[in-house]
Amino acid sequence: MAVQGLKLDRCSLNQATIKKASLATAVSVTAASGIPAIGLWREPVAEVGLGRAAKIVRDSGLRVSSLCRGGYFTSPDGPLRRAEIDDNLRAVDEAAELGAPVLVIVAGGLPRGDRDLPAARRRVSDALAELAPYAWDAGVTLALEPLHPMYVADRAVVSTLGQALDLATAHGSEEIGVAVDTFHLWWDPDLEGQLYRAGVEHRIAVYQVADWITPIAADALLARGIPGDGHIDVPRFTRMIRNSGYSGDVECEVFRQDIWDADPAAVAMRVAAAHSSLVAPFLEPISGGRADTWIN
Amino acid sequence: MAVQGLKLDRCSLNQATIKKASLATAVSVTAASGIPAIGLWREPVAEVGLGRAAKIVRDSGLRVSSLCRGGYFTSPDGPLRRAEIDDNLRAVDEAAELGAPVLVIVAGGLPRGDRDLPAARRRVSDALAELAPYAWDAGVTLALEPLHPMYVADRAVVSTLGQALDLATAHGSEEIGVAVDTFHLWWDPDLEGQLYRAGVEHRIAVYQVADWITPIAADALLARGIPGDGHIDVPRFTRMIRNSGYSGDVECEVFRQDIWDADPAAVAMRVAAAHSSLVAPFLEPISGGRADTWIN
Repeated sequence: MAVQGLKLDRCSLNQATIKKASLATAVSVTAASGIPAIGLWREPVAEVGLGRAAKIVRDSGLRVSSLCRGGYFTSPDGPLRRAEIDDNLRAVDEAAELGAPVLVIVAGGLPRGDRDLPAARRRVSDALAELAPYAWDAGVTLALEPLHPMYVADRAVVSTLGQALDLATAHGSEEIGVAVDTFHLWWDPDLEGQLYRAGVEHRIAVYQVADWITPIAADALLARGIPGDGHIDVPRFTRMIRNSGYSGDVECEVFRQDIWDADPAAVAMRVAAAHSSLVAPFLEPISGGRADTWIN
Repeated sequence: MAVQGLKLDRCSLNQATIKKASLATAVSVTAASGIPAIGLWREPVAEVGLGRAAKIVRDSGLRVSSLCRGGYFTSPDGPLRRAEIDDNLRAVDEAAELGAPVLVIVAGGLPRGDRDLPAARRRVSDALAELAPYAWDAGVTLALEPLHPMYVADRAVVSTLGQALDLATAHGSEEIGVAVDTFHLWWDPDLEGQLYRAGVEHRIAVYQVADWITPIAADALLARGIPGDGHIDVPRFTRMIRNSGYSGDVECEVFRQDIWDADPAAVAMRVAAAHSSLVAPFLEPISGGRADTWIN
């Protein structure tokens, strides 16, 4: 029961927002809400098996905006690191099989007991060097995602868009893209300039929206909210994304306990409404013939 | 009962680390532990009265490394903003009276219900413009402190050292300094370059150390730890500080419930030990005649 009059043509529901739903349920509530695309996660895909998951998604008619996630390759050289890289090669294969044009990459944090951040960052770069040609051959774009600096120790040693672009650029051409998430990046005083740079380099592979809620949840991973519920000026951020030239889907990705506990169909409707009011209008081309200028 | 053999000549105990202690107790446990300096807070000073506080500190023979804190001036124009600025003028006077060479400035977050981060940042700049000449005349250095990006909504719209330096530089000369805190800045991929810049501009007014503990405490304000207890490479950070040319005190400033609940004298001893092993050795001049080079 899609709501009439909502503008959803570039809206995607990231599966993590309705984490407790099975893949089949996630696909059906997404389609029913009028959202035309879905962002998949490896774990619920694995639950039903890759082939069956691909068929469920294909049969639904939904676009797949991305697969989450690869990465977590910061271990020092050894069998563990080899296993991490191999797992990422499999993730690329899965993305290709699912029809996901993008594999989101979360770098990973510091190895246990290790305080050498520069070394961990070098290992991210090395892992990308091995992964990028494989992904390119598979037709999958790696989207390196800078995570909020509060996750640097345990989840991602890549913390800013500038840093992600530096890492991507080091591997040349457009092989490696970036994932831009409002929750992770909204605080960055250098955001506008780096989004401009990302646009010029054509590196924005996926745009994700979520809000920032205070106080930060007791489990800091769950501090997000649906756009409009928190402190982020999502329209302004989205206008900068539009100005970067990004023309892909906009995923709503929210990790939050009360959202996870709610009815998935109701959450999908809330996401659709938030997208229609706070995102879609700001993706429109600039009127008055200034669509090709950055400043507006 | 200072421990023999500890290297503490540039160590300062920030009063917030032993938050429950009165000023008199804070001063006495600091002196007893062999730490030669203290970082003061306005609230415990106000508890005993400014004049009496100044006398307690003077009589102790301790140096005052800084007064915490001014700032919180992000309100839109109006009586509230005027009150914020006036409060900061008083904070400057208090710093001068207490013999504190530095007033730490925390910008403040977004006004309630307001999502306009660029505007809040402009108001910080405007407030600094009004405050800087007054502080200069009083012989007090304003130390603008970038806070971790996880506090941008509710505590500080200044999040990186580069941003703080941009704001300081906009007001010319060396009137405005910066406070560099390991807890707030350790994640920054641009840290080394910005510390180098801060050194060249002689803007580091105070260096504070605290560690980053995971998981982040349920109250994210209390996520800190004593150096050595968490993920930060405090020796490496301190070496960069030394390379910047900073020659002042190093405050240990820890907000953490179990530290606050512990005996203040025991905490002071722990701080002294951590400083002596993880900070002091890395403040030493580079041997081999290379003290004037950045790279080592």
